Amino acid sequence: MGSTVIRSIATQDRRFALAPGAGGDAIHRDPYYAYAVALLNTDAGPRGTGFALTLGPGTPLVCQAIDLLAAPLVGREIEELMASFGQTFNALANHPQLRWLGPHKGVVQLALAAITNACFDLWAKARGLPLWRLLLDLTPEQITALLDLRYLDDLLTPQAATALIAEQIPSRPERSAVLRDGYPGYDTSVGWFGYSDAQVREHVRRSTAAGFGAVKLKVGSADAEHDLRRAAMVRDSVGPDVKLMLDANQQWSVPQAMRMCAQLQPLNPYWIEEPTHPDDILAHQALARAVAPMRIAVGEHIPNSVLFKNFIQAGAMHFVQVDCTRVGGVSEFLTVSLLARCAGRPVVPHVGDMGQIHQHLVLFNRVALGHEVQFLEYIPHLRQHFVLPAQVEHGVYRIPQEPGSSADLHA
Amino acid sequence: MGSTVIRSIATQDRRFALAPGAGGDAIHRDPYYAYAVALLNTDAGPRGTGFALTLGPGTPLVCQAIDLLAAPLVGREIEELMASFGQTFNALANHPQLRWLGPHKGVVQLALAAITNACFDLWAKARGLPLWRLLLDLTPEQITALLDLRYLDDLLTPQAATALIAEQIPSRPERSAVLRDGYPGYDTSVGWFGYSDAQVREHVRRSTAAGFGAVKLKVGSADAEHDLRRAAMVRDSVGPDVKLMLDANQQWSVPQAMRMCAQLQPLNPYWIEEPTHPDDILAHQALARAVAPMRIAVGEHIPNSVLFKNFIQAGAMHFVQVDCTRVGGVSEFLTVSLLARCAGRPVVPHVGDMGQIHQHLVLFNRVALGHEVQFLEYIPHLRQHFVLPAQVEHGVYRIPQEPGSSADLHA
Repeated sequence: MGSTVIRSIATQDRRFALAPGAGGDAIHRDPYYAYAVALLNTDAGPRGTGFALTLGPGTPLVCQAIDLLAAPLVGREIEELMASFGQTFNALANHPQLRWLGPHKGVVQLALAAITNACFDLWAKARGLPLWRLLLDLTPEQITALLDLRYLDDLLTPQAATALIAEQIPSRPERSAVLRDGYPGYDTSVGWFGYSDAQVREHVRRSTAAGFGAVKLKVGSADAEHDLRRAAMVRDSVGPDVKLMLDANQQWSVPQAMRMCAQLQPLNPYWIEEPTHPDDILAHQALARAVAPMRIAVGEHIPNSVLFKNFIQAGAMHFVQVDCTRVGGVSEFLTVSLLARCAGRPVVPHVGDMGQIHQHLVLFNRVALGHEVQFLEYIPHLRQHFVLPAQVEHGVYRIPQEPGSSADLHA
Repeated sequence: MGSTVIRSIATQDRRFALAPGAGGDAIHRDPYYAYAVALLNTDAGPRGTGFALTLGPGTPLVCQAIDLLAAPLVGREIEELMASFGQTFNALANHPQLRWLGPHKGVVQLALAAITNACFDLWAKARGLPLWRLLLDLTPEQITALLDLRYLDDLLTPQAATALIAEQIPSRPERSAVLRDGYPGYDTSVGWFGYSDAQVREHVRRSTAAGFGAVKLKVGSADAEHDLRRAAMVRDSVGPDVKLMLDANQQWSVPQAMRMCAQLQPLNPYWIEEPTHPDDILAHQALARAVAPMRIAVGEHIPNSVLFKNFIQAGAMHFVQVDCTRVGGVSEFLTVSLLARCAGRPVVPHVGDMGQIHQHLVLFNRVALGHEVQFLEYIPHLRQHFVLPAQVEHGVYRIPQEPGSSADLHA
């Protein structure tokens, strides 16, 4: 391998208008899908691309935070950088002044996500490997060296992380079918909040006809009857065998969530997603106990591994919806996946990246960490903007073969 | 009262260099004390000033977020706005796109703090009253209407908030001595991380000679012996009767914090502050149980009332160090003060504002909410920059008498 040195950092503010009604939920009306993009330029070789999802007007804030945070990466050689990325990540995440604006949350953390993701993308391109392959080729010690495990040692020490990964090596072949057969998807794009009943029915019909075995409906309306009626309508449409996930997007208070979950239970939802405020660990814990055997999914707004550790320790989440465009990028995603594995909780990423990067990460989670196969969220609205859009056929993500993390956007 | 209409919003990026060694702690080296300032301009009347503390290079991000968030306030009359400020706050805090960058944390939340604080400042100036007086003149219903209590109803409903405030009215006279005698301060500026032993000893001597009955020392060094030696040195200097607080500024892992607390116990610290990561509710809960009767203070990095609710419900904080320049401003400070009162926890603000605004708020907490008198942090480093710097005499904050929230800075 030649030497690939980061020569400069650039950012892009990319915004993509959505079709009327698409992308909205109970709390995020009229979104743009927008990305704050970090670009790591090298001399003649590949360029690293990473991004964080924003929903529009805040994108320049994240871009400026990228500029402020990423400056120390200029001049770094990518192999040398990634050999101890956990240390670099720790230094970036704990910038002596910018840390005050978090710590490890909000605009600055989104910027860190974009930067980290660009580093992993550049690394995989420099090696000429798809990201999933690169990650699977690493030794347990090399994987642990990618991670910043500070503040987690009451659940996971570096030694324990390395041991966990090493223990999974003998059984990797049993789990490698996924590298041939692909990873199942589920379709979020059927049930946006702004869709009419007729639109939802039509999208559900198309989605199940296309082979998806799981669909998601947005709930969290001010009108509980509306939610119950729509959920029943979708359950009727798909029958008892298709998994139905219900997503309240944080709209309920704790007492409301208790009531709504009880009323939705007969529809046998596979999970209830974001029932209330995503910082409310104890509320999720109380809900998880009260609504069992219904299960709670949460994570798209949980910004760092310390908060995920708390949710996991509290038994407050059944499905870990970590998103590498919300936490500090690919490496913190892997950290959270390890925490989840310690506690036997499945990781089902939220895909702020539309699944582009996560299609790599779920393969690593399955083969290297021994996570069970779940399904990966699929949102097709931006596929024409990606250079290498994820290929989903018959409801299954195909395996990306091109170098990198599939994050490049058309100019 | 005449009509005071907000005509335009302006922002200022104000940075103040500190003397060598001052202001630093185990994690924030070389700080600037910097403010992102929100200014609410009116036609001919007063101008509202509010700010959030930043530590330097991130200030423009917060200023831009103020511009994005505050636009809906233009054209609003201040009395009409404040009559239902809780609703306006809820709308600003849940901006349909900017919310994604939090929610309710990080850069966007700091911007909300500055905006909210400017609204309260303008309101008090328009009425010609110091903020503490304005707040004490409100009815319980008017106070509750200032607050956004969403997501808190498992601990505090609006009805319960109003009732709590109303119940305290008959006993207000018993607690009103503080409005004459002033509110005790404590001195943070004696024990900065970067100070030499000789500097610490000299500052401690001056501080106790000036009448302070409590001092704070920064710990959290990589060298545990250094921390233990310095803490013992300060305890020796001040004797057994002065309160000594120790502040680790998040530097310890949970096992480290357990060890250090056990070793520091013989020095009888009044509290241990920020022993570990401020998002780690369960770690603080475990620590609080393990180190009792030592007590835990935390809050300067806790960004919103939902997280404070969790800390309080978990028994994870003994002293509630909410800061109106970190949470969404004065109104969310009051919300957290109510939550703390429900649970019998004292509020001892962290003073990102150097005590300027909080000197008003602790009077309200004492008289209207029935909180016990503790002491208010005092940091003198910026006093020459404030138009009306807090007057601390013999270790006691005097009562501000001028209209507003004491937040104006010299041009």
